[in-house]
Formats: sequence, structure tokens, C-alpha cells
Amino acid sequence: MATIDRWLLPDGIEEVLPPQAQHIETARRATLDLLQRWGYELVITPHIEFIESLLVNAGQDLDLKTFKMLDPLSGRQMGVRADITPQVARIDAHALRQAGPARLCYAGSVLHAKPQALSSSRSLIQLGAELYGDYSSTADLEIISLMLEVLNLAAVADVHLDLGHVGIYRGLAQAAGLSGCIEQQLFDALQRKATDEVAALTESLPPDLAHMLRSLVRLCGGAEVLDEAEQLLAMAPEPVQSCLTTLRQVATQLSLRYPEVPLYFDLGELRGYHYHTGVVFAAFVPGVGQSIAQGGRYDHIGAPFGRARAATGFSTDLKNLIALGQLESVQAHPAIWAPSEASTDLWQQISALRQAGERVIQALDGQSLDSAQQLGCDRQLVLQQNDWIVVPLP
Amino acid sequence: MATIDRWLLPDGIEEVLPPQAQHIETARRATLDLLQRWGYELVITPHIEFIESLLVNAGQDLDLKTFKMLDPLSGRQMGVRADITPQVARIDAHALRQAGPARLCYAGSVLHAKPQALSSSRSLIQLGAELYGDYSSTADLEIISLMLEVLNLAAVADVHLDLGHVGIYRGLAQAAGLSGCIEQQLFDALQRKATDEVAALTESLPPDLAHMLRSLVRLCGGAEVLDEAEQLLAMAPEPVQSCLTTLRQVATQLSLRYPEVPLYFDLGELRGYHYHTGVVFAAFVPGVGQSIAQGGRYDHIGAPFGRARAATGFSTDLKNLIALGQLESVQAHPAIWAPSEASTDLWQQISALRQAGERVIQALDGQSLDSAQQLGCDRQLVLQQNDWIVVPLP
Repeated sequence: MATIDRWLLPDGIEEVLPPQAQHIETARRATLDLLQRWGYELVITPHIEFIESLLVNAGQDLDLKTFKMLDPLSGRQMGVRADITPQVARIDAHALRQAGPARLCYAGSVLHAKPQALSSSRSLIQLGAELYGDYSSTADLEIISLMLEVLNLAAVADVHLDLGHVGIYRGLAQAAGLSGCIEQQLFDALQRKATDEVAALTESLPPDLAHMLRSLVRLCGGAEVLDEAEQLLAMAPEPVQSCLTTLRQVATQLSLRYPEVPLYFDLGELRGYHYHTGVVFAAFVPGVGQSIAQGGRYDHIGAPFGRARAATGFSTDLKNLIALGQLESVQAHPAIWAPSEASTDLWQQISALRQAGERVIQALDGQSLDSAQQLGCDRQLVLQQNDWIVVPLP
Repeated sequence: MATIDRWLLPDGIEEVLPPQAQHIETARRATLDLLQRWGYELVITPHIEFIESLLVNAGQDLDLKTFKMLDPLSGRQMGVRADITPQVARIDAHALRQAGPARLCYAGSVLHAKPQALSSSRSLIQLGAELYGDYSSTADLEIISLMLEVLNLAAVADVHLDLGHVGIYRGLAQAAGLSGCIEQQLFDALQRKATDEVAALTESLPPDLAHMLRSLVRLCGGAEVLDEAEQLLAMAPEPVQSCLTTLRQVATQLSLRYPEVPLYFDLGELRGYHYHTGVVFAAFVPGVGQSIAQGGRYDHIGAPFGRARAATGFSTDLKNLIALGQLESVQAHPAIWAPSEASTDLWQQISALRQAGERVIQALDGQSLDSAQQLGCDRQLVLQQNDWIVVPLP
């Protein structure tokens, strides 16, 4: 491999240089502190795991996104985490086993073997929060609010929110007695809003259920969608009505809390790695095709780890958020330049300044005051009457 | 795979739960802030790269430690980083190309396919600093001092420091005209302090050089080693003398700066992934076989990336440091408990408290004040005469 090739990084895998790296660090701290103020406790999940643990509950999406390799110690196949949510669910279900609700959060890199979209990064910093043990709309509301607070902190402008509820489709499909394979086909057709396919797949169903399932394709838009849905689904079974009520409760509270965030509804939208069970949501900004933060309810995700309970959460890519947001880069405080002399007095003075929070850069051989300015110093340490004192740079 | 197995993690791969995860986060911030105060700028390197880039300059050690997998996009072999130092060297040599010296730092996970020792973790949080572009002992001194400051910050007690200089062995071997293969064998024998092998391998050399090379095995101990070395190596070629001078300069300054840290010298010790070229060092604590932080000079590491220049740096495993150190866990400020009511006034009051830095945990359905105490709350929000106010928990 020629010298010129050695520094080539794989497509979608980036390195981050100064000052951008510090900018990411600042945003990481600010968002984690925000999650902490909402009562969410930090967990650190492994970067690699056995493939069986990593892909529990996962659809084909996540499987294709996961880098795989052999563990030389056990001889078993491992994967690099492509999503942190299932790992946190395992921590809640197995390691913590908290009696009441648990609030957990995380921030860490995930890698995608295949990018989400053609130009997407394959190396994300996933940040998110998960709330376990509460089936009520209060939990949905808290998680969506928290996601909006994170977007607000990152100063992302013109956010709008898409809301849906997978229980509406699931309830109708169940009432219609649809089997696994047909249900999956109809699910896919709805996602693509393929009206003709939806019509064909519901042809043999009782007319009222067929009508309701078909109506899901066009039940998308502003707040009026909820009124329309109430009329169209008036004859739907109770679980479907109850989903609609939950969705309205969450939407009403969100409008009160965040009147500036436009809400859109899509009752045929069934996002995620096939593990969602309730309210689902995604935040978008104009001009960006992919959602910039998303999540939803995924009750019983912990079942394969021995504990089925309520769960909802959101996640976002911190790198993308910083690229889209207007978060002010924290300007590093100007530094102090110190000469390279091997003096104990100088060393003690430098140490004291650093202890006090100052940034002190000591000259290396041959460096002049020109370097001091280039490195962002505005003051220097000089010896005056046997004392090292800080004076402005000339 | 049975439920009971699904949560099993691979050997040496750990998850970190609350409050330990927050403890690591606190230490991470404190150490990065320390590095920043010394003028080191943060970089974020990729978790995976093409194997040719990752293993440039690497010995067999690093190769065996590196997890490998195929990139489905390019069809090329990739590796998971097992060491961040070579990546930062590439950033200095290729991406930054700064005219003067560059100070860079990093903190991030690295994975080891094979553990360092039988019981070692394979999932480390490597933290380190690198100083490029200065060949003088001032740079060595700065990096070693900075490493000691990090250990001090982590409150690791009873640290002692091992110092060596690979240039002494290299200079003698070169003067003796040793070829690649024999030089490597002798190098290995010296590392193992295998006196007989060293004697055999130096048998045919000129007596004075053979004597000097053999003496390296026993040139280890306290400060007296440097005096002894000066006598034993008095007839050594100039480059060897110059290495000894550098080592003494660094040691003298370290003794002045850190009189409490015992210094040991080992002139036959040649640590690292075979890329060291000058002063090498490692910090130890009693009862732990492996070094807890280490580094050294590795000039010209950037050559394969198109830029050969001076380089020295250190690294440590943050998780290990926290386990060994006595760093005080930052006690989370007691939180405020809020009822679950859907009141806009309550919401505004909660938001204002969080904005002011308070941790506010809102009750979920069915939670009582018992939960508040379990979650570390010491106050609660109550409605008194139409105002939500904070009062102590009963």
C-alpha cells in the first residue's frame, strides 16, 4: 500500500480534529448533564457482544448494519454495536432489576456496516434516554419532551415532530385475524403508502375492518388527523380506541409544553427495528430527509433477558446534531505562554496557574513569542525581580 | 440460545452500571480538562480503519490484539482500534501538518482481541497525550510530568516510575554492527533479562562492546544505576553517551518536580510495540504486575503517512485508573421530587428548576414518596396557595 493510501479512511468513517472534537465534547457534556437533571442515570454498554445478545428482538435492518467478527477466545461470533437501545434494555432487565421505574441514559459510538442512507456516516455518536416500567402516556410524554429539550440545547432550529401509534395498526390487524406473513406484507405496504397493495391485501376482510385499515394510508397531516381518525375508527375495537386516546393525550400536553413545535400525525407510519409497540415519534428539520432524533415505545423488549416490562426511549446522533445545530462553540479561554527554562520557581508558578484553571503552554526549544500567539495565548510568564509574573503579550 | 445465556458477555468485555458509569464520566472530564490546561487539544479517532492504516509501524503484539472484519462496502479488511497512539500520529502527520510542535490528546474505548494478561479487560478506555515536533528532553519531561499529574488527579497512591532509553541499546547494537535478526534476538533476550542468552549472542563481538551490551541486563535499580552506567559505558560511542545524558536530565528534573515519586532505571528495558526510539517510561503501583500508565519517545512514527518528526506520548486505561485510585465519587446533588400532575404551572416550575441546575424527578403513575427517597430526593414540589414550591421531604 503506497504512502498516499495509508491515511485513507473507509467510506463513512471519520476522524475529528481540533477544534471540532472539543466542540463535540462540550455538547456531549451539556446533553448528558441535561439528561442527569431529568433523573436519568448513565450506563456504559459494551462496544462488542456475542451476536445472539446484540440482535435479540432485532429486525433484518439491524442485522445488516452490524459488523461481525470472531472472538478468538471463545470461537463465537461477535458483533459491533449498531444500536445501544437493546443493550440498555438488557441492563434494565438483567443487571439492574430495579423494583420501580428506571431512567437510564447513554452516549457512545455505534458503527454501521451499511450506512442508513447513501451519504450517511457509518460512525455515529448515539445519545439517548430510556424509561422502563411505566405503561402510561406520562412516560411517553416525558421521553418526547426530553428529546425536544436535547434538540433545543443543541440549538437546532425549525424542528417539527411526527407522531404515530403502532397499536392502531396492530389492533386492527388483530381484529381482522391477519396472520404473520400477511400482516407483515400489509405492514410493509402501509409504510410505503402503497394504496393499491393495501387495497389488494385487505380485499377479503370484513368491509368495515378493510375500510379502517385502508384509511390508515391517508391518516397523516396536522391535528385534524386525530379528529378524522376518531370518526373513521369509531367502530374499531376498544384497544384501537385506547391507542387513539393515548396519542391525543400526549399531543395535547406537547402542544401546551412546546407550542412552537409543529406536530404532524401519521397513523400508517410504523418506524423502527420492528420492535415498537406504542407511541412512536421522530423529529425532522427542513431540508433533511432523515429524522434527526427518534424513538418510541417498545414494551417487553427485555423479555428475552428474563423481564418483560414497559419501555420507551429516544436516540439521536450527537455528531449530526452538532452539524445541524447552532450550538455556540465554547471559545477556549486564552492561554498563558511560559518560557522553556528548567527553573523550579517557574514550574511551581505554572502548576499554580493550571491548578487555578488557567491553560498554560510551555515553550519548546526554539519557539518564540510568534508561536504563543498562534497557539491562542494572550499573556506570558516573565521573570521580574525574582518573581514569575503574568503580563500581557506584547 | 437459552434466556439464561443471552446476557452473558464475552470474557473481558464489561458493561458499567450506575453509579460507576457516572464516576468514569466524572474522571474522564477531569482528566481531559487537565490535559487541556497543559495545552493539549482533543482529537477523536475512528473506532475502525483499514488494517493497513491501523497496523503501520506495529509489531506482532498489536496485530494479535486487533479484531479484524470485512468492510462490506469496500470488500477490504478492517480492524477495530487496539491502540489510539498510531492514529493520532497519522492525524499529526497527515491531517494537521502543523508547522511547529503539536500537542494532542484523546480518550476513547479500545478493544483487545487477546487480553494483555490472563485476567485483563479486553475493553479499555484509553486516555493519553502526544507531543510532536520536539526532539529535546524538554518534551520527554513534559509528557512524563503530565502522566504523573493524571495519576495524581486519579488519586493513585504509591506510584513509582521506571525510566529507560532504548537509544542506549540501539547505539551499542549499531556500533557492534548487529544485523536485523540477531539484533532482534538480543533485544528479546535483554527484555527477558536472560543473561546466558545475552552472553551467547554477544560472544563474537569486540570485547568492549560485548561487555557493555551484557552489562545492560544488570543496569537496573535506583539513581545509582546512572553513575554505574556512566562508568561502564564510558567507552561507548557518542550517541550512547548522549542518550545517557538525556536520561539524567529528565530524571534530575523529575526528582525536583516530584520528589515523592521514586525513580527506577532499567537500561535493558525496551518497552512498547517495537516503535520506541528514545526515553521510555512506565508507572507502577505495589501489588499490580502490569504498568498502570506508560509511554515513550517514538520519533518518525508518522513517516509512513508522509511526515517523519519527533514524537513522545503516554497512555493509560481510565477504567483501571479509577479502580486503583481513590478519586472521590462526586455525590450527585439530592434531587427534587415532583408529582405526576399534568399541570402547565407545575411543568413551568420543573423546567425553571432544571434550568437552574437542579435534578428534578417527576413521579410516574402509582409512585409514592417512598420512591422519592429511594431515588435520592431530599425535597419535593407541592402546591401551596396556587404556587408550586419546594419543601423538604417529610
